[in-house]
Order: sequence, then C-alpha cells, then structure tokens
Amino acid sequence: MRSPQPLHNGVADNNRSPSAPRFHSTVAEHKLRRFNSLILVFRLTSFSFSLASSIFMLATSRTGDSPRWYHFDTFRFVVASNAIVATYSLFEMSASVWEISRGATLFPEVLQVWFDFGHDQIFAYLLLSASAAGTSMARTLKDMDTCTVSNSFCVQTDIAIALGYASFLFLGFTSLLSGFRLVCFILNGSRFHL
Amino acid sequence: MRSPQPLHNGVADNNRSPSAPRFHSTVAEHKLRRFNSLILVFRLTSFSFSLASSIFMLATSRTGDSPRWYHFDTFRFVVASNAIVATYSLFEMSASVWEISRGATLFPEVLQVWFDFGHDQIFAYLLLSASAAGTSMARTLKDMDTCTVSNSFCVQTDIAIALGYASFLFLGFTSLLSGFRLVCFILNGSRFHL
Repeated sequence: MRSPQPLHNGVADNNRSPSAPRFHSTVAEHKLRRFNSLILVFRLTSFSFSLASSIFMLATSRTGDSPRWYHFDTFRFVVASNAIVATYSLFEMSASVWEISRGATLFPEVLQVWFDFGHDQIFAYLLLSASAAGTSMARTLKDMDTCTVSNSFCVQTDIAIALGYASFLFLGFTSLLSGFRLVCFILNGSRFHL
Repeated sequence: MRSPQPLHNGVADNNRSPSAPRFHSTVAEHKLRRFNSLILVFRLTSFSFSLASSIFMLATSRTGDSPRWYHFDTFRFVVASNAIVATYSLFEMSASVWEISRGATLFPEVLQVWFDFGHDQIFAYLLLSASAAGTSMARTLKDMDTCTVSNSFCVQTDIAIALGYASFLFLGFTSLLSGFRLVCFILNGSRFHL
C-alpha cells in the first residue's frame, strides 16, 4: 500500500511529477466534479427529508388533550437526530459547493475525506436507530388507546418517521460514495480515482 | 478507473504479466492472509454476540404470568435479526476459513467481494434497527407496570439487546474491511491491495 501524500487542501499539484500529463488534470478533474455533484444531489435530498421530518414532528397537532412529541423520549430522539442530520447536511453541502466551484477541499484533503466518511457513517447509523426506535414506539401507541383518541398525532408521527427513513437512505448512499473516495485516497494518496 | 479483471475464484495468476514479480505473490498474499484473519476474528466475535443475544431472549423466564418475548413484535424482530446475523456470520466464517486455507475465494472473486460487502452493510443496518427498536420497547415496558411485575424478564431483554449492539459493532467493523476490499477490487481488479 502506498502511503498517502496529502496535498494542501487537495489542490492538484501539476508540478509534482513531470511524467503526470495534463490529461490527468482535465479528465480526472472532470470525473471528480461529476462525482462531487452526485454527492451534492444526495446530500440535498437527505437534507430536505430530514428537515421535513423534524418539521412534521414538531408540528404535530396541538388540539385539546392530544399528546405532544416531547412527551415521548423516543420522539425527542427522532427530532434530535433529524435536526442533527439536517444541520450536518447543510454544512456538507456548502463544503461540496466550495469544492466544486474552487477545485479544492474546504479542509486539508486528508482531513476532509476522513471527516466526510466518518460523519456520514455515524449519522446514518444514528438516523436509522432513531427511525427504528420511532417505529417501535408508533406501533406501541397504536396498540394502546392513544391513536383512537388522537388519530392525527399518530398519522403525523408516522409521516415524520417515514421521512427519516428516506433521509437515511440517501445518507447511506452518500456514505458509500464518501467511503469510495476515502479508499481512493488511502490507496493512491489522492481523492482522484483515475 | 481501470476496469476490473476478475480472476477465476480469485486465485493469483502469476502468468498474467511477465513484469509482475514473484515478490507480489508472496508479500501481497501474506498481507491479504493477515487482513482475512482480522475479518475472521471480527466475524467470530459478531457471531458469538448475536448467538448469545438470541439465546438470552429465547430463554426469558417462564415463571407464572411473566410475559414472553413472542408477545411483543419488537422482541420477535430482535430475535429474528440476531438469528439471521448469527447464521450469516457462520457461513461467512466458513468462507473465510476456506479462503485463508486455500488462497482462493469460495465464489468467483467479483461475486465474493460484492456479496460480502452488500450483506455486511444490510445486516449491520438490520441489527442496529432491531436493537434500537428493542431499546425503545424496553424503555416503554419500564414506564408501564410490566417491569415491576416481572423484573427478571426486563433484565434479560436488556442483556439480549446489549449483546445485539455488541454484535452490530463488530459487524460494522467487518463491513468497513469488506468495503475496503471491494474498492481495492474495483480500482485494481484484484482484492490484493498492494
């Protein structure tokens, strides 16, 4: 395994090797740009779903004696996880736009690829566990009287949880792509995979 | 990106390129063997934890009017997920032992690396969602009267769920390693990462 040679902020250094042709810096950069655009689209989708999920849960009906989301630990966990993922996705989207527009990563390249993959993995697992716990709680509420008394609350929590699953799906895809980029970096010392 | 060149059952083909020295086939094979041994250890740990988790849940106390695990959908999901992961880990351990002893993968190499990574990912997510749902259910039971009536049932389910989390942890590590092997294969056409 060759040891990684981190480039400052991941800018391609054309003077590094005289044998590296200009071909590399155009074709590889073009491919990397398309790859990053795909990641950006996935992050945008994940952001939208998790934001929508938080809002849906926060906006559960306030009528009469209907229960609220903060009465249940599990639903608090769902709201928190979706809010964290939405915030993280927003930050990563800015980093992605920065990288696509300037051709350089926001942090030094070695930090950026590990940061992206590590956080994608952790937040994907976080969001999945929140959604799974939420599903279990929603099923329990259906078996009790809560859903007959206040049906709209149950419908809204179901929708919020489903949106959380959708967000997890796209975050999972993103984590696969950032994992690919990380292994490229470990093997070749560069996130360019050509 | 170079296109993968699948080798039949992943046996190193020394005649493929006259420029590839014998050095490759000894050092790389030695490294790969250590890498596969690490995967085998992780799989064994994951297998032990998930088997223990299933057994703990199945053996919850049968005294008097104590509830049983099959009275709750969520706990059935926990048992099923852990049993599936234990079976899968057992199969993968045999495949791993086969690969270490014979130097060739059980299935053709391209199939093996995708099979391993795909299943590791899916089963890691499955096990995490089962454990998270189980945790939510266990917390709900504590809030109700179930745990005061039959405390040993609650303690046993807690232990079973904790063992499920431990199994997930090692399956997650395995999935990172098999992901690394997959990207090596995609980039270099071989699971050898030298």
